[in-house]
Amino acid sequence: MALMTGEQYVESLRKLKLQVYLLGEKIDNPVDNPILRPSLNSVKMTYDLAQLPEYEDLMTTKSSLTGAKINRFTHLHQSAEDLVKKVKMQRLCGQKTAACFQRCVGMDAFNATYSTTYEIDKEHNTKYHENFKKFLQYVQENDLTVDGAMTDPKGDRGLSPSKQVDPDLYLRVVERRPDGIVVRGAKAHQTGICNSHEVLVMPTIAMRPEDKDYAVAFSVPTDTKGITMIVGRQSCDTRKIEKDTDIDVGNKEFGGVEALTVFDDVFVPNDRIFLNGETEFAGMLVERFAGYHRQSYGGCKVGVGDVLIGAAALAADYNGAAKASHLKDKLIEMMHLNETLYACGIACSAEGYPTKAGNYQIDLLLANVCKQNVTRFPYEIVRLAEDIAGGLMVTMPSEKDYHSPVVGKYVEKYLVGVASVPVEDRMKVLRLLENLCLGTAAVGYRTESMHGAGSPQAQRIMISRQGNLGKKKELAKAIARIK
Amino acid sequence: MALMTGEQYVESLRKLKLQVYLLGEKIDNPVDNPILRPSLNSVKMTYDLAQLPEYEDLMTTKSSLTGAKINRFTHLHQSAEDLVKKVKMQRLCGQKTAACFQRCVGMDAFNATYSTTYEIDKEHNTKYHENFKKFLQYVQENDLTVDGAMTDPKGDRGLSPSKQVDPDLYLRVVERRPDGIVVRGAKAHQTGICNSHEVLVMPTIAMRPEDKDYAVAFSVPTDTKGITMIVGRQSCDTRKIEKDTDIDVGNKEFGGVEALTVFDDVFVPNDRIFLNGETEFAGMLVERFAGYHRQSYGGCKVGVGDVLIGAAALAADYNGAAKASHLKDKLIEMMHLNETLYACGIACSAEGYPTKAGNYQIDLLLANVCKQNVTRFPYEIVRLAEDIAGGLMVTMPSEKDYHSPVVGKYVEKYLVGVASVPVEDRMKVLRLLENLCLGTAAVGYRTESMHGAGSPQAQRIMISRQGNLGKKKELAKAIARIK
Amino acid sequence: MALMTGEQYVESLRKLKLQVYLLGEKIDNPVDNPILRPSLNSVKMTYDLAQLPEYEDLMTTKSSLTGAKINRFTHLHQSAEDLVKKVKMQRLCGQKTAACFQRCVGMDAFNATYSTTYEIDKEHNTKYHENFKKFLQYVQENDLTVDGAMTDPKGDRGLSPSKQVDPDLYLRVVERRPDGIVVRGAKAHQTGICNSHEVLVMPTIAMRPEDKDYAVAFSVPTDTKGITMIVGRQSCDTRKIEKDTDIDVGNKEFGGVEALTVFDDVFVPNDRIFLNGETEFAGMLVERFAGYHRQSYGGCKVGVGDVLIGAAALAADYNGAAKASHLKDKLIEMMHLNETLYACGIACSAEGYPTKAGNYQIDLLLANVCKQNVTRFPYEIVRLAEDIAGGLMVTMPSEKDYHSPVVGKYVEKYLVGVASVPVEDRMKVLRLLENLCLGTAAVGYRTESMHGAGSPQAQRIMISRQGNLGKKKELAKAIARIK
Amino acid sequence: MALMTGEQYVESLRKLKLQVYLLGEKIDNPVDNPILRPSLNSVKMTYDLAQLPEYEDLMTTKSSLTGAKINRFTHLHQSAEDLVKKVKMQRLCGQKTAACFQRCVGMDAFNATYSTTYEIDKEHNTKYHENFKKFLQYVQENDLTVDGAMTDPKGDRGLSPSKQVDPDLYLRVVERRPDGIVVRGAKAHQTGICNSHEVLVMPTIAMRPEDKDYAVAFSVPTDTKGITMIVGRQSCDTRKIEKDTDIDVGNKEFGGVEALTVFDDVFVPNDRIFLNGETEFAGMLVERFAGYHRQSYGGCKVGVGDVLIGAAALAADYNGAAKASHLKDKLIEMMHLNETLYACGIACSAEGYPTKAGNYQIDLLLANVCKQNVTRFPYEIVRLAEDIAGGLMVTMPSEKDYHSPVVGKYVEKYLVGVASVPVEDRMKVLRLLENLCLGTAAVGYRTESMHGAGSPQAQRIMISRQGNLGKKKELAKAIARIK
Repeated sequence: MALMTGEQYVESLRKLKLQVYLLGEKIDNPVDNPILRPSLNSVKMTYDLAQLPEYEDLMTTKSSLTGAKINRFTHLHQSAEDLVKKVKMQRLCGQKTAACFQRCVGMDAFNATYSTTYEIDKEHNTKYHENFKKFLQYVQENDLTVDGAMTDPKGDRGLSPSKQVDPDLYLRVVERRPDGIVVRGAKAHQTGICNSHEVLVMPTIAMRPEDKDYAVAFSVPTDTKGITMIVGRQSCDTRKIEKDTDIDVGNKEFGGVEALTVFDDVFVPNDRIFLNGETEFAGMLVERFAGYHRQSYGGCKVGVGDVLIGAAALAADYNGAAKASHLKDKLIEMMHLNETLYACGIACSAEGYPTKAGNYQIDLLLANVCKQNVTRFPYEIVRLAEDIAGGLMVTMPSEKDYHSPVVGKYVEKYLVGVASVPVEDRMKVLRLLENLCLGTAAVGYRTESMHGAGSPQAQRIMISRQGNLGKKKELAKAIARIK
Repeated sequence: MALMTGEQYVESLRKLKLQVYLLGEKIDNPVDNPILRPSLNSVKMTYDLAQLPEYEDLMTTKSSLTGAKINRFTHLHQSAEDLVKKVKMQRLCGQKTAACFQRCVGMDAFNATYSTTYEIDKEHNTKYHENFKKFLQYVQENDLTVDGAMTDPKGDRGLSPSKQVDPDLYLRVVERRPDGIVVRGAKAHQTGICNSHEVLVMPTIAMRPEDKDYAVAFSVPTDTKGITMIVGRQSCDTRKIEKDTDIDVGNKEFGGVEALTVFDDVFVPNDRIFLNGETEFAGMLVERFAGYHRQSYGGCKVGVGDVLIGAAALAADYNGAAKASHLKDKLIEMMHLNETLYACGIACSAEGYPTKAGNYQIDLLLANVCKQNVTRFPYEIVRLAEDIAGGLMVTMPSEKDYHSPVVGKYVEKYLVGVASVPVEDRMKVLRLLENLCLGTAAVGYRTESMHGAGSPQAQRIMISRQGNLGKKKELAKAIARIK
Repeated sequence: MALMTGEQYVESLRKLKLQVYLLGEKIDNPVDNPILRPSLNSVKMTYDLAQLPEYEDLMTTKSSLTGAKINRFTHLHQSAEDLVKKVKMQRLCGQKTAACFQRCVGMDAFNATYSTTYEIDKEHNTKYHENFKKFLQYVQENDLTVDGAMTDPKGDRGLSPSKQVDPDLYLRVVERRPDGIVVRGAKAHQTGICNSHEVLVMPTIAMRPEDKDYAVAFSVPTDTKGITMIVGRQSCDTRKIEKDTDIDVGNKEFGGVEALTVFDDVFVPNDRIFLNGETEFAGMLVERFAGYHRQSYGGCKVGVGDVLIGAAALAADYNGAAKASHLKDKLIEMMHLNETLYACGIACSAEGYPTKAGNYQIDLLLANVCKQNVTRFPYEIVRLAEDIAGGLMVTMPSEKDYHSPVVGKYVEKYLVGVASVPVEDRMKVLRLLENLCLGTAAVGYRTESMHGAGSPQAQRIMISRQGNLGKKKELAKAIARIK
Repeated sequence: MALMTGEQYVESLRKLKLQVYLLGEKIDNPVDNPILRPSLNSVKMTYDLAQLPEYEDLMTTKSSLTGAKINRFTHLHQSAEDLVKKVKMQRLCGQKTAACFQRCVGMDAFNATYSTTYEIDKEHNTKYHENFKKFLQYVQENDLTVDGAMTDPKGDRGLSPSKQVDPDLYLRVVERRPDGIVVRGAKAHQTGICNSHEVLVMPTIAMRPEDKDYAVAFSVPTDTKGITMIVGRQSCDTRKIEKDTDIDVGNKEFGGVEALTVFDDVFVPNDRIFLNGETEFAGMLVERFAGYHRQSYGGCKVGVGDVLIGAAALAADYNGAAKASHLKDKLIEMMHLNETLYACGIACSAEGYPTKAGNYQIDLLLANVCKQNVTRFPYEIVRLAEDIAGGLMVTMPSEKDYHSPVVGKYVEKYLVGVASVPVEDRMKVLRLLENLCLGTAAVGYRTESMHGAGSPQAQRIMISRQGNLGKKKELAKAIARIK
């Protein structure tokens, strides 16, 4: 069973005994919870699309470990072409869900861990790479979804892990046993965790020698004892549990949720450990994962952007305003910005190169440039979308008013745009716009674009490091004939 | 009773028999409805502040009609200094509510209608100005809140009022009687209508001769027969009706809501009519109201911006990140942008000049420049706030989780920032940021900044008209010595 | 002779024995030097306009010292209205010269020195204020142009004045004598020095106690022994000395040049000293001068911007492209940006307030916001102008080619735009655009907009100080109900 | 002689009998003219680098026509990898010259003409493709530089070619003879024409049937009878002919000049004709050439940007300001913007695909996105460079003053920055910055970035066409469940 169908995936999740909390309550059946289900549906799309012949080349590939056909989300990239296909697959999934489909973090963690463990083993004679390969083969063979977990709560940003008042504010090893380790701490903002079979934990920053216990990477099933997920609130989250609300949710089928994931003395067996105290490799793992994930945003956010641009264009059509030159120009600007992000995603992929372990790495400078633009352009695209949409996007009566026997007639009468377009369609597209601009999806399209895969300043530091200012000075000296 | 206290204002509203619908239900007591009340509290602030000695000079003034002390929100501006004080009053109210306090539309409508009716009467020998003065004296003496209603639903943007498939898509006179007129139509996006005693209706665009029935302005009490208000959905609106939710609403006390307001054959007595068929004056009224209201945004949004900047600075403090140079620089940028808006508000006021009727008009070019900047800078300020806030702003567990006997301890443990700051305070400031960036307040701070007082393109058209390109060409010709 | 005519001004300059060097040569007659003369013409405009009845209210006023009618450029501002008129006068002069007219630095230095000396005398019982008043009365009565000189060469930016390898890199007192002091050092970037009767020297930064000799302010005639001016190179400077070149210079009549001005042991008599060792007041003088001068840019650069916008509009007309919607929109954007700068200039003036000495001070926060925008918007205005102008602006054959008996016919034939417009006019407007975008005038319109009155970071520091972040945090706490 | 050395190239140019006019004079020896020579040196660099082993892979390749080793500038791209290498070669050349090296237009014209003539021949049974292959083989075998000439003077932008008052404002066939055609007209802004052996002429816009005589493409030697080149004026052009000026030119060795190139009844033999009246293919040729050339800017301008960034960093070092966090951040921003351009150049290349003729075409959407960014980012990079450089960049005394026996000592004394850096080095780097920001090189780095390969609006039209808004609407409809 190298490829699960979407339905098989859903069934596989039902078997997990996850500890999920939402709005103060334990959720016994997260799979069918109306707030959580759209998020699961987004992951399911990565299985559904892999079944379709027209997307076979993008969505599936041949395993470098076994030669079997696998979902590309579990793949170790074997070429620059693979890296480019990854980005295209992500744009496709973004277009089909208008949401975060969550399976990228695992894919990016696989590729970063694979090459890093290889180099640790070379240096320290450890067995992390072998552990990891075995784990990944299991993932590929069972077509699992794995959450890549990096961000610690971090407490006081001015203090290093071991200097925090509470030593658990960065996840750490609290006990070393012959058969494994016990870890304690938490990972924040875990988007796909409720929909994942496994979680692959990595450190969140480069570590110094004194932070030895914090330099730890491993994988465990998501329903391992001691793991608790507390789902975060999103803007407009409870619209999904309103009765008779269908249009008002904006994107009824798809979404994405985040969870604060607590590891309260979780046991990790030896063969699932991929880093354990080799502090000097924590930075490499972080940098590589972040690099891959900054590339990812040049695909997924572009796909979501496509939907947003399309929705804005529909809103203009439905308003009878599509021919206004300023609106056409704003749509062009939105496409221009969106394609600039895509260009960055493609470029850092096309410039990829093999790691020592053999899988392919993106161009680190360009991947950081990509993500830096992602922290800016979606905000401007949203601004332009709100400009085109008009104020009705945020002042429109509710779906319940639309169906009200008393005031429904008014809504029907006064929300008409172009006479040939049903009012319901106009409402639907405006709610979709609201969803993406300030509703549940704005969490993914805006704030995640800002902070996901590292906050803007993190990219600037990398651009500074990778930009080779020294060489540029030499070039300038040569032209200016300065010795 | 020239000045009501806040409490008197609330009681005065209880006496109105408004037809308000929200989420499909008729609201019998809008004053105490938890979704609507914060909006009322914002208006109440305009009464409360007027009672305080330290704000007396800003919040109150002497009526030009009666000489009595009145709330400045009911004033006819008598000088450029009055116009400047108006902007400062608005900034103050924005700072105290972090929301739209709604009473500006009435004030702006008063001043536009006052000068326009004066000029109509001169031309047409009508009695609109006298009607209006009588009405305004009543407003001043009773310290009323008046909704200024301009925006029609507009249907197909490609068609003029009389060419729409449904002739009611712009509000119009459907019957002329000896004692008055009957009007039908609707006004969209009415922010303060539920909290207003009266509504002052104006046309929404310049009219052509064939649109005679649409060139109408008047005032009626908000509980006049035939008026129905359908409150729009806002992002996160229902958080206010969640049980035990206090922090999660972000701004518990203040807000602003909008209503689609339907006029279903509403009768207007003759002495409340201010324009009735003089199509060539519709444009003047629109332009003047829009001018005043574009000035207003150089005050109110700046006040809200002050709160947002303060909240972002607190978030950085609570994270232990306040000393990072990039964060300091982002806060400077936010202040710079916010003060640029303020400078525009002040400048168009300081350059004010008297109308023929004697009240003061803002500089139209600079007021449009002001509003054009308001369609841009709050979005960038929000983007920077989200950058500073960090991802937790949108992934933070709910207040219910924080109070949960099971997972509350995890929230308390892992949401610690700087150890000396209570987790609850950190949660409060992050929820306030969420509220302003993508919650209920984002409707006012972002989308209303975009479309309120006219969408961006409307300002560009005015800038084009007022910018005097011809004179600039002459200046260039003189320098280039072109004859 | 309270007001000189332009011609009288020119004659008065002929009497000075300035030491001016240009391109390696001493210029014996700077008044008639073709590279320097356009700069003098710009200053002359401040005299010429003061003679015209239509500008009397802007260009002249009543002296607060003597009651006589004086040129506003020598005035101590007596009200916020005076501050506003100052900005309008500057916009006017910018429109008439499309260049820097240089007389503002003196005016700004007068007002800063006047109020600062008043406060020094109160504190130290010195006589600087009396000295200064006497000096200023002399300036007003003779309608002199005075260069305000602030910027020192500064050497290594990482070191304070007294820590530089060469102690003269900041101007300093090298000898104290009974009758006065001897100073040594230099002032960089002195725009108006060659066209000034007097130079008023101020320190360039706040000083520490150990920098006592550097805390010095004074005035001397520009032809005082020991003063040497070395005129800087400007882009395209030598076009002005090409034979038969008339069109190619772009702006034939007006310009502005800068000079490195050396003070090589210059003697300053006691009654011309305005600061001498009171280090704690150096910062006040700098801050006030910079504040006034940051206001100034909200006038003068706006005037130059008017000419640039007009030139771009003409270029579009002459191309037959004036109706293209994207070009119209770009012109609107240029006007919007230019008027935003003006709004900032007006606002910081309208919010002015009296100093302890009685003259008026601008609002410091808004003046810094003004200048910060000036470091950005002219660059974008230039970019848009280059967009509208088309590539011909920088590839156009020379005027000599146009007049060539061999190739002149080709230039005439192929540089035709709209058939009714003479080719020469098209060439003139393109050369004017070149002049402003990358020629001699770009020095003033771009780089001076960046660095004049302090580099961008200097304004950011002031915005940080003046922005009152603490109060904003309190506002946010009140809304979030944080104690 | 498949590869010429730089010296051989120079000698080959001496043999041409070009008609070149500059500043009203005929230039008998353009090769050694001091204004023109730096431009030639830039082209020479494309020969010099091809001789160096370290650049062999980038600068040379195997001809698809003959299998011989050729300079890549004469190559027909055989793969996406070739397209990527093209961009890297251009960045390299930009880094080595800080100027336009001019040979790209020919390369881009080759590839566009090759594929277009193939398709014309298929449709019309003409022999253009064969003609073109023969021509290109000659170019490759002799390693020639070819100017690709597209832009016509265009006269009144509101009129099509055949509707202009003067029919020659677009180049056209004026006579058809058995052995060839005679053409008349001009090509504007020809950057490399004076340094080229051949000129390859193409139409400038898509043509309508009535514009038949204007749909013409061909190649002739640059010294063909009837061709006259009138070199355009550049900012600071005559600094190159000043005596004893070495530093002041900024970039002494390299440059680029443009010429209005007149075709006054030039004869073209039949075997050099590549399009002659097949109006429906004019648009294809224009679009393909423009596409390639918009890609090119993602390489060459990035290389120049590298030098500019390096120069700004040096200026900060020499000022002692390199550690200021705001300066470091500005350098990061410059690198970020520059690499974003590069990413666009790489992406449109990596996404290349084969034409019907077999050579490779770039992704048209991404190439237009690339160029659109090039019309913006270099301006911001320049603005930041001017910020970092400080005002001295435009007020610095001349080199002649530096060497003056009288004032040289002052320049030496007061232009010191960090004490260990020679003043001359500081002057050199500031002059290089001036050169790139507003001197001769600004023509290439700024205005050419704006208008070269088509003005910004041309790219917006292409983005609109290529952006597939229809598909985006379908995606939005699917998510919003609109049928």
